[in-house]
Amino acid sequence: MDNKKIKNLQAGDSVQSFFLVKAADCKTTNNNKHYLDLTLVDQTGEINAKLWDHNPEEGPQYSPNSLVKVKGTTNEWQNRLQLKIEKIRMATDGDGLEIGDFVPAAPYSPEFMYTEIESYMNKIKNQDMRNIVKSIVTANKEKLLLYPAAKQNHHAVRSGLMYHIMTMLQMGEKASEVYVGLNRDLLFSGIILHDIAKTAEMNASELGIVSEYTIEGELLGHIIQGIKMIEQTAIAVGADREVSLLLQHMILSHHYEPEFGSPKRPMIPEAEILHYLDMMDARMYDMGRVLGSVEEGKLSEKVWLLNNRKLYKPSLKNEDQQ
Amino acid sequence: MDNKKIKNLQAGDSVQSFFLVKAADCKTTNNNKHYLDLTLVDQTGEINAKLWDHNPEEGPQYSPNSLVKVKGTTNEWQNRLQLKIEKIRMATDGDGLEIGDFVPAAPYSPEFMYTEIESYMNKIKNQDMRNIVKSIVTANKEKLLLYPAAKQNHHAVRSGLMYHIMTMLQMGEKASEVYVGLNRDLLFSGIILHDIAKTAEMNASELGIVSEYTIEGELLGHIIQGIKMIEQTAIAVGADREVSLLLQHMILSHHYEPEFGSPKRPMIPEAEILHYLDMMDARMYDMGRVLGSVEEGKLSEKVWLLNNRKLYKPSLKNEDQQ
Amino acid sequence: MDNKKIKNLQAGDSVQSFFLVKAADCKTTNNNKHYLDLTLVDQTGEINAKLWDHNPEEGPQYSPNSLVKVKGTTNEWQNRLQLKIEKIRMATDGDGLEIGDFVPAAPYSPEFMYTEIESYMNKIKNQDMRNIVKSIVTANKEKLLLYPAAKQNHHAVRSGLMYHIMTMLQMGEKASEVYVGLNRDLLFSGIILHDIAKTAEMNASELGIVSEYTIEGELLGHIIQGIKMIEQTAIAVGADREVSLLLQHMILSHHYEPEFGSPKRPMIPEAEILHYLDMMDARMYDMGRVLGSVEEGKLSEKVWLLNNRKLYKPSLKNEDQQ
Amino acid sequence: MDNKKIKNLQAGDSVQSFFLVKAADCKTTNNNKHYLDLTLVDQTGEINAKLWDHNPEEGPQYSPNSLVKVKGTTNEWQNRLQLKIEKIRMATDGDGLEIGDFVPAAPYSPEFMYTEIESYMNKIKNQDMRNIVKSIVTANKEKLLLYPAAKQNHHAVRSGLMYHIMTMLQMGEKASEVYVGLNRDLLFSGIILHDIAKTAEMNASELGIVSEYTIEGELLGHIIQGIKMIEQTAIAVGADREVSLLLQHMILSHHYEPEFGSPKRPMIPEAEILHYLDMMDARMYDMGRVLGSVEEGKLSEKVWLLNNRKLYKPSLKNEDQQ
Amino acid sequence: MDNKKIKNLQAGDSVQSFFLVKAADCKTTNNNKHYLDLTLVDQTGEINAKLWDHNPEEGPQYSPNSLVKVKGTTNEWQNRLQLKIEKIRMATDGDGLEIGDFVPAAPYSPEFMYTEIESYMNKIKNQDMRNIVKSIVTANKEKLLLYPAAKQNHHAVRSGLMYHIMTMLQMGEKASEVYVGLNRDLLFSGIILHDIAKTAEMNASELGIVSEYTIEGELLGHIIQGIKMIEQTAIAVGADREVSLLLQHMILSHHYEPEFGSPKRPMIPEAEILHYLDMMDARMYDMGRVLGSVEEGKLSEKVWLLNNRKLYKPSLKNEDQQ
Amino acid sequence: MDNKKIKNLQAGDSVQSFFLVKAADCKTTNNNKHYLDLTLVDQTGEINAKLWDHNPEEGPQYSPNSLVKVKGTTNEWQNRLQLKIEKIRMATDGDGLEIGDFVPAAPYSPEFMYTEIESYMNKIKNQDMRNIVKSIVTANKEKLLLYPAAKQNHHAVRSGLMYHIMTMLQMGEKASEVYVGLNRDLLFSGIILHDIAKTAEMNASELGIVSEYTIEGELLGHIIQGIKMIEQTAIAVGADREVSLLLQHMILSHHYEPEFGSPKRPMIPEAEILHYLDMMDARMYDMGRVLGSVEEGKLSEKVWLLNNRKLYKPSLKNEDQQ
Repeated sequence: MDNKKIKNLQAGDSVQSFFLVKAADCKTTNNNKHYLDLTLVDQTGEINAKLWDHNPEEGPQYSPNSLVKVKGTTNEWQNRLQLKIEKIRMATDGDGLEIGDFVPAAPYSPEFMYTEIESYMNKIKNQDMRNIVKSIVTANKEKLLLYPAAKQNHHAVRSGLMYHIMTMLQMGEKASEVYVGLNRDLLFSGIILHDIAKTAEMNASELGIVSEYTIEGELLGHIIQGIKMIEQTAIAVGADREVSLLLQHMILSHHYEPEFGSPKRPMIPEAEILHYLDMMDARMYDMGRVLGSVEEGKLSEKVWLLNNRKLYKPSLKNEDQQ
Repeated sequence: MDNKKIKNLQAGDSVQSFFLVKAADCKTTNNNKHYLDLTLVDQTGEINAKLWDHNPEEGPQYSPNSLVKVKGTTNEWQNRLQLKIEKIRMATDGDGLEIGDFVPAAPYSPEFMYTEIESYMNKIKNQDMRNIVKSIVTANKEKLLLYPAAKQNHHAVRSGLMYHIMTMLQMGEKASEVYVGLNRDLLFSGIILHDIAKTAEMNASELGIVSEYTIEGELLGHIIQGIKMIEQTAIAVGADREVSLLLQHMILSHHYEPEFGSPKRPMIPEAEILHYLDMMDARMYDMGRVLGSVEEGKLSEKVWLLNNRKLYKPSLKNEDQQ
Repeated sequence: MDNKKIKNLQAGDSVQSFFLVKAADCKTTNNNKHYLDLTLVDQTGEINAKLWDHNPEEGPQYSPNSLVKVKGTTNEWQNRLQLKIEKIRMATDGDGLEIGDFVPAAPYSPEFMYTEIESYMNKIKNQDMRNIVKSIVTANKEKLLLYPAAKQNHHAVRSGLMYHIMTMLQMGEKASEVYVGLNRDLLFSGIILHDIAKTAEMNASELGIVSEYTIEGELLGHIIQGIKMIEQTAIAVGADREVSLLLQHMILSHHYEPEFGSPKRPMIPEAEILHYLDMMDARMYDMGRVLGSVEEGKLSEKVWLLNNRKLYKPSLKNEDQQ
Repeated sequence: MDNKKIKNLQAGDSVQSFFLVKAADCKTTNNNKHYLDLTLVDQTGEINAKLWDHNPEEGPQYSPNSLVKVKGTTNEWQNRLQLKIEKIRMATDGDGLEIGDFVPAAPYSPEFMYTEIESYMNKIKNQDMRNIVKSIVTANKEKLLLYPAAKQNHHAVRSGLMYHIMTMLQMGEKASEVYVGLNRDLLFSGIILHDIAKTAEMNASELGIVSEYTIEGELLGHIIQGIKMIEQTAIAVGADREVSLLLQHMILSHHYEPEFGSPKRPMIPEAEILHYLDMMDARMYDMGRVLGSVEEGKLSEKVWLLNNRKLYKPSLKNEDQQ
Repeated sequence: MDNKKIKNLQAGDSVQSFFLVKAADCKTTNNNKHYLDLTLVDQTGEINAKLWDHNPEEGPQYSPNSLVKVKGTTNEWQNRLQLKIEKIRMATDGDGLEIGDFVPAAPYSPEFMYTEIESYMNKIKNQDMRNIVKSIVTANKEKLLLYPAAKQNHHAVRSGLMYHIMTMLQMGEKASEVYVGLNRDLLFSGIILHDIAKTAEMNASELGIVSEYTIEGELLGHIIQGIKMIEQTAIAVGADREVSLLLQHMILSHHYEPEFGSPKRPMIPEAEILHYLDMMDARMYDMGRVLGSVEEGKLSEKVWLLNNRKLYKPSLKNEDQQ
Repeated sequence: MDNKKIKNLQAGDSVQSFFLVKAADCKTTNNNKHYLDLTLVDQTGEINAKLWDHNPEEGPQYSPNSLVKVKGTTNEWQNRLQLKIEKIRMATDGDGLEIGDFVPAAPYSPEFMYTEIESYMNKIKNQDMRNIVKSIVTANKEKLLLYPAAKQNHHAVRSGLMYHIMTMLQMGEKASEVYVGLNRDLLFSGIILHDIAKTAEMNASELGIVSEYTIEGELLGHIIQGIKMIEQTAIAVGADREVSLLLQHMILSHHYEPEFGSPKRPMIPEAEILHYLDMMDARMYDMGRVLGSVEEGKLSEKVWLLNNRKLYKPSLKNEDQQ
């Protein structure tokens, strides 16, 4: 009887733990019995669970985003671990739980990452640019602290957007040491703002989970929304017109190809490199996540998000890390 | 000796007329003599002209957009008419010319078309929409009266943008009689605004000839610029948020395909039909222009602008027009 | 106990009504019991129904296109309404039913629409063209009265093909008032004939439901079949050769892009505009159908038929219609 | 002084020979002198020739497709051989020339190839198919004897169409020996008819040189024209309906991809293999022609017709041919 | 009670036969009972079978590639034949079975086909080429005798790779009789080697069934692997450098399009024709397989492997084969 | 009279300097006079020059890659500077010139860059990888010191290939500090080897100017050639098989898209990031070169190499660099 984390469970374990309900589906067997099909998560992973002979119209609603306490046994069927629920109840205030402890999140605290980003904002020497960036970041601080970078793609975890920005800033700084002609003010500003309007494109819960896109997000998209934010803010802070246009152009062109949402390709080197830093960061994140569950010397399944590629995890040791 | 219009000239004619210089190129023969290669236009067409033994560093500059008086003789060489200049001088105030009389222009007067568009603005019943549209049109009236719809494509004549808008409004009104569920306010507003930011994307001379794109036009393009105009104006007139978003979405989606500059496809029927009305009007204009110089029963050359198609002009009589 | 139409049903209703069987599938539960999974329709919509413990090899065959009387109760499961059948029998002549009253159909009577199309045929002034069009329409009248415009796409309802033609003729007439150079004879003829060979490409039941494509339809397609119809008919009525070719070209090019079945793009303005009228009509129909079941201020699901777009239904009132 | 063939000429040769004028362009030097720029051909190749100080408005017209006698000297300039004309006159009846002897042509006589094709027609066992094929071939015999297979692409020489058909028939026969399930009647008929309507798509002179496409060719194209030929002929000879449809389908699908003009892909194996035999034959012809003028161990220039590839001519000996 | 082959089974038959297990899946019913879902094959086809109430954790493992004896009854449900297993046991040595007799295989014996290929190798006159080809074929003989040409596509049967090579050699020989300029040595060598590295790209069981790709196969692919084989072997046998490069180029270019894995298009005619022979052979195989189960006068389902086409089986008799 | 460098020349300057002949074309005027059209370069740029009335068949050959001394005058015509040559002679040993001083080259000395690359090779900890890389680099050292990275694209200057490798190594090192899970051995090895076979794909003169591709380069390309180099070298040094495969995979996949020459996309993170580092470095180089000649606040011409984009040079000051 134990409080094991999901990633440590094995077939045959007895389980008595709290989980977050990520999805709950009412299903019916062919002989017309109702049961609940639940997806339970903690910060380490997720597991499918069955609550047999449960009619949700009669019993309690274990709905998404609620915390539950579960007693049951794990079994393995068709190569996947499953949890057969014996007892289940809603968590109560008395349990003293923090729901955020059950949600997959970026590996750094929101506060740490926000401070990091602030330190880069302070490195922006052009006053107009710094004003624009600070004004937009401050106005969106509350959402920034929680938002993922996407609903399903790369960095789709709580505070994932800031994590993405922070890592790109680190790479951007290093790139500017190699390509010394780059305007670091533009590069830092572009990195910080490139996806900032995702906070206006999506609705995320306080858990940093995106439930849906906003109407404006659907009708216009975060690129257009971000451009408008910059236009307004630049006017408000009285910024130089070219500064405003260059930042807008960087947002507009950062998806690079028209078919991916950028009607203009980059026309300045800082916009060009912004695109590649964005791609690199997204891919390093996604590849890392996929390879995390692959054995050495083996291939992953095809990954739809990565152009349906399989990835390979070498059995070769990384000698730098020894 | 004669004041013939360009489209009436034939080989061997003596010419003594005023023309507008559309292009002027200094060239040199292989035996190192300088000469001027001019493109002369009046409202009926254009002709190539040569001024031999003329060194522009020494003599007068016959630069684009200036009016000149020319004496010469036409000859036909390799199937095209050419004008050999014998005498040339700049037009003077004393010649009493109106430069606008020498520029290809829309078939209606700017004032008439503007009034037409105004009458459609007055048909917009939703007050917020009418305010936005009127505010933007009024603010850009001066440019609207002159601007072509493009530098080289369809409606690339003086006041061509208004001509394009006016015809689309007429078709839009008729479409709303057949598809009665359409919101006419949205449709009229979308038609009037869809290309309005071309006035900010391009620099046109007072002759309605586009010399170049603006920096903002290059970095962002008229679709993005138009969206920002609507956003600002909607805030300024205190319009309903959804009204503003719908108009912005119509601008954003009217090129329909991402590779043609629309990151979002139409999500409301009025945006969908706006696209088709735009295409139809552009194509009717371009096809009419091409077929104007094709004989009955013959094919045109391949037209790059029309996916490199040849057009065919039937020898069949149009019995409606007899 | 009630005769409610499908679109008015709610969970928990008792039902005792006639329906048309649209689809019937024999299924088996995991514990090896047979049951029937039926799709029932009336003119207002469709509903899934289950007949438990029914072995079709032993009992009656409730096959597609038959009328049945059903007694049962509705319940809602996983967000969809379902009908649990308690009693079912085949409808009999004594029930006095008209099967056509159970099929989704165009909003006008076939006879009305046919008369409308006839009136447009009479507006064709060119005698050869009128002869060709009338001859083909008359020869296919019986099918025309019933056929949908497609098996699954736009206007896939009984008499949908005529409905599509009729609306396009109305728009075509209006377009010819704005673009006055268009040859109305060609335009009307092209509209009437553009999809006429769908009557030869598909097999439709007397209910206007397409069960399959014909062998010739699969091997050649309605565009090629339509061209051959015109060729034959033009020879039979002794029409001018150019008239015949122009009509054939309009059919051939109306899908516009080679990858959509048109090896030649439009080479005359009437063919160009035919394409856009066709697209507009199909899209207005499809968008209207999708938005019919969307709430104001909400988005639809992604619609595969519309390039996988979501549509949006504004909460904005249409002030024209008040 | 000599009657050398073009392919044998070298720089500095005196020339006194008859040639066919393939193209004649009036040009003017920068110091305004007229001269004629001629392309002269015989069956072995072509050469550029200049006739200086010649004003075509005053002197004789050396127009395309006329035979001329030329005296001159060759020189090499910028890696190409050129002929400076000293004397030139039109050929006369007295010269006793056969214009056909000056035109690039297939390597077999038209009569021989026609007989070959006839022998394959006689191998078609299905009587309906044989009737259709014979009827169409006979009706187009006169053109078939002369027509090239294209204006510019593969087999663009006199009688090139028959040459293409004949070689494909030989390959088709062999393929049917390996893939024994193929219906040889269909395969032979499809090969003979696949491009037969090129005789209706293009206008070729009696020299087998295509000057232009016909109006019907432009509006419909040879695939559609061929299908109509088969439809008509099948009706005329009272052929089985499926026979007619299968032949039409083979014509329709033989370009394979919609973007190359085939709205339907092959649905029977005989249509599939027809496509590959067609491609192979065209490519063997084009590659042979290109490599004919490449040295061993060297690469050709990029060949636009072959997806802009360079070809390589091995220095390796072909040991089969020793 | 009978030993019927799968393709001869009908609903209601009693079965008592040996089969090969191709796939075995543990499944569970909604009321939580385990059962085995098996795919059984013999050389004539495959059938789905159910073993109810079987918990694989407790009973024997009927895993893929094992031979079993089965007693049961067939029934037809939802248009497909199914086998309900009453008794099942593993085959034993005492049953005297040859597992190879249960696997779909090429229609010729491996030994016959190998001898055929050897005879073509002996026709290669260029000694370097013959050495390279023989060396590679000999080194891979064991795998060649068994390997299919693919995991799922064309020729995916035991010894399918040799069958593919043999047929292509026959066609290649015939093509060289029509296109007499082709270097037969290159053509034969290219055909034999073009897919030879599939033996290194895939792991196949001794039954000629591919279970997976090798790591090298995934990371590089058989084209690259084949090139390296030729490079090494050419060095080992001391072959002429050009011979080695030409063979490598033929392997590299035989998929023709970059998006299908060929970074270079064919630059010699033998490489060009190799591609078409490869395509033709794959397509003739696939089409034959699909049409094998289609009735005369009917269409197949859409075939994903053939660009999602339907195929048609004419009712027309093949008069050659009567 | 002066020794000015090309980039300092202005119209009207007298010139008396040494230049390298990059290209020399014999041309003829329309009145049949010969002249030489030369492209002259020094390390600062290039200029067009004319030598009138010069018949190369009679006078000296000023062929590419020779040094000449020229006396002349510059003039500006049609916006470009031109040099009219008055006197010209071949440079002699007595002039004491180093031809390398006249060729555009990387901004660092070959020796310095080679040492840099060596230092990175020494950081490779995996002995097999280090052996492979060192062996290949050493074997190609002579060419590496001189070769450009391309004939015309990015880094097409003397020693450009090493410059490209060196900058990528610097960026790769920094990337490995941010993405700490990356295997630096693989990354450094992949960067050093990714284009190394360009030394085998192209023939470059001792000036680092590529005149043509090798036959093997044309038939296979540097990606395939590089893979073979690694295969051979890995065998020679007895390296671990996986090490060899991973390096080959990195070379194979570094162009990322099949249509750009990579039949496999990256399957390990180090290959993924190699691609982006390669793109970034190429683009930073090309954009820097283009913007070097653009005024602040202005746009460049369209740059074919950069997807036909225009670039923009901000008037904004780079505050980091003040």
